[in-house]
Amino acid sequence: MPVNTMHGGNIYQFARRIGCLPEQVLDFSANINPQQAVDWVSLRTVNLTPYADPDYSQLKQAFKQRYPYPANADCEVFNGASAAIFALLRFLRPRQLLLYAPLYSEYVRMGRQLGCQLSFINRFDEDLDAVIPRGSTVVFVNPATPDGQLYDLHPLLLRWQQADCTIVIDESFLDFCLSESAMESISQYDKLYVIKSLSKFYGCAGIRIGFVIAAVSAVNALKQYEPSWKLSSLDMAYMQQALVNTDFIAQTHQQTAILRQLLHQALCDSGLFEHVYPSAANFLLARLPGNCDGHALQSALESERILIRVCDNFIGLDQRHVRFAVKDQHTIEQLAYALAHV
Amino acid sequence: MPVNTMHGGNIYQFARRIGCLPEQVLDFSANINPQQAVDWVSLRTVNLTPYADPDYSQLKQAFKQRYPYPANADCEVFNGASAAIFALLRFLRPRQLLLYAPLYSEYVRMGRQLGCQLSFINRFDEDLDAVIPRGSTVVFVNPATPDGQLYDLHPLLLRWQQADCTIVIDESFLDFCLSESAMESISQYDKLYVIKSLSKFYGCAGIRIGFVIAAVSAVNALKQYEPSWKLSSLDMAYMQQALVNTDFIAQTHQQTAILRQLLHQALCDSGLFEHVYPSAANFLLARLPGNCDGHALQSALESERILIRVCDNFIGLDQRHVRFAVKDQHTIEQLAYALAHV
Repeated sequence: MPVNTMHGGNIYQFARRIGCLPEQVLDFSANINPQQAVDWVSLRTVNLTPYADPDYSQLKQAFKQRYPYPANADCEVFNGASAAIFALLRFLRPRQLLLYAPLYSEYVRMGRQLGCQLSFINRFDEDLDAVIPRGSTVVFVNPATPDGQLYDLHPLLLRWQQADCTIVIDESFLDFCLSESAMESISQYDKLYVIKSLSKFYGCAGIRIGFVIAAVSAVNALKQYEPSWKLSSLDMAYMQQALVNTDFIAQTHQQTAILRQLLHQALCDSGLFEHVYPSAANFLLARLPGNCDGHALQSALESERILIRVCDNFIGLDQRHVRFAVKDQHTIEQLAYALAHV
Repeated sequence: MPVNTMHGGNIYQFARRIGCLPEQVLDFSANINPQQAVDWVSLRTVNLTPYADPDYSQLKQAFKQRYPYPANADCEVFNGASAAIFALLRFLRPRQLLLYAPLYSEYVRMGRQLGCQLSFINRFDEDLDAVIPRGSTVVFVNPATPDGQLYDLHPLLLRWQQADCTIVIDESFLDFCLSESAMESISQYDKLYVIKSLSKFYGCAGIRIGFVIAAVSAVNALKQYEPSWKLSSLDMAYMQQALVNTDFIAQTHQQTAILRQLLHQALCDSGLFEHVYPSAANFLLARLPGNCDGHALQSALESERILIRVCDNFIGLDQRHVRFAVKDQHTIEQLAYALAHV
């Protein structure tokens, strides 16, 4: 059975295949902060019996305090960013969908299912100032994935607005950067949607909460297509705790910068890669030289229970591209050792 | 601000309005088992960092053990039955949607949004053998809501099959009855979909997990429209524990029968109602006489912090119809006292 490289992070298939427990896998394939922002014990008081507040008042309040958005904006919650992407595209039903690639396969998959006319601008090869189809829906992930490059979106936002585009900015990894959100621009442009996933930064992929921030009228329309209750009360309690933990933000920034540098060094020192891409996020994309195949590297690392992500299913990338999540120091050292011995 | 009777169970708005805490509300509006099947401490070992198994293998295994479905069937998970209803109807995109009313407003709302041609058969007034539009999609909730009547579906299933219908059976409350699931019929008919909500029976509306059971090919097609990760790891761990707790099933049946009888007696003894409907579920529908208004009764019970559900937004019912969830003995006694003093 092949490793599920389609979505990454399927440590369960991987563990079954190599014959270990999922928790024994050194998982470099999923970009999840190894730190936790919440004390488990605080969840004990959650009452699971009644339906949760269908307005998600407390969660939204905590979110707004952490991510103040403009007065003309509102947010809608989803059971994860993946669910938010699906719901938003289904709601927007774009005729023409312009994707800045490489990016998550989720956007491509959903665009195809909705029968969108898909077009791509390759961030690595092409001029970002390429002609924008008028009235199209554009999707930009910032910082980008799988490379982690942080873009100054101001000139692009202007271009898109001039082309009367509907704009979707996916900021799933922006918390790892000390950078301003595109949410601010909703005050000047009401066809802008920002997607926020909190599970990457807060180290809890098992907690399914994501947000879409947009103009009040757009959020009201989007809500009409949503079921009455969709979030776990446990997840909400967890995320409300995480959002008020401000110490965690500075700690994570500091830790991620140090550990990303350590990972960068390990990749460079291995001598295996011809390029490691600049990243402001909690992962690094590296390119193997010539005809090398990332799947061969992936296989070679299996004996050390290390799972990495081969990025050949990202539009514009091939099997030479492999991605590594920033993990804790000990795990990075194990990777460094393994890379030195493949 | 009016009480949100649209969905029931909004104890948060109610509590704010009458000036108490949500946990102080005696909530007869939401049909949630007051018993719990899971020891909270068992959730402590859940690792929230990694992405959950995107195949939901363990959860599905526990589900299948509890609800064995035919060999040609499979199940898909959703973040609650409400999400399952929305996803299923969106997937089926029925041209003609035939709803056996009264039933959850969710089906009506979604049918309208999808532009379905809606028609209704009123279970209370009309012959259930009314003409079924050929090729239509039918929805039947069994036991029915808001009354709790349990139907023998065999003759209806036959009628629907003869009319080449797509069939949706919502069994959100079937666990409260000692009755066979419609899932069995998937082996003879592959256009049958069964929806199961577990949160009512397992007393955990805050846990968002629901299932659709259908033919393997139908489930595979349905999955294509779903995001990669949608369930909370905490919720999954909770539900896996609940599903293997077989003692809980017999306990709940016994308790519900006793407490439903107690509630029935309390409603009859009050002398307020001209009819209490027969119910096999964990709630009772009662009808006030003449020109009485359930909203007046709802208001009169506010001072006792009691929230009931007025059912005037169910197709075929009016403001005389009020619904009461089966609660624990003490809470039912508080209701009985309040009803005797309105």
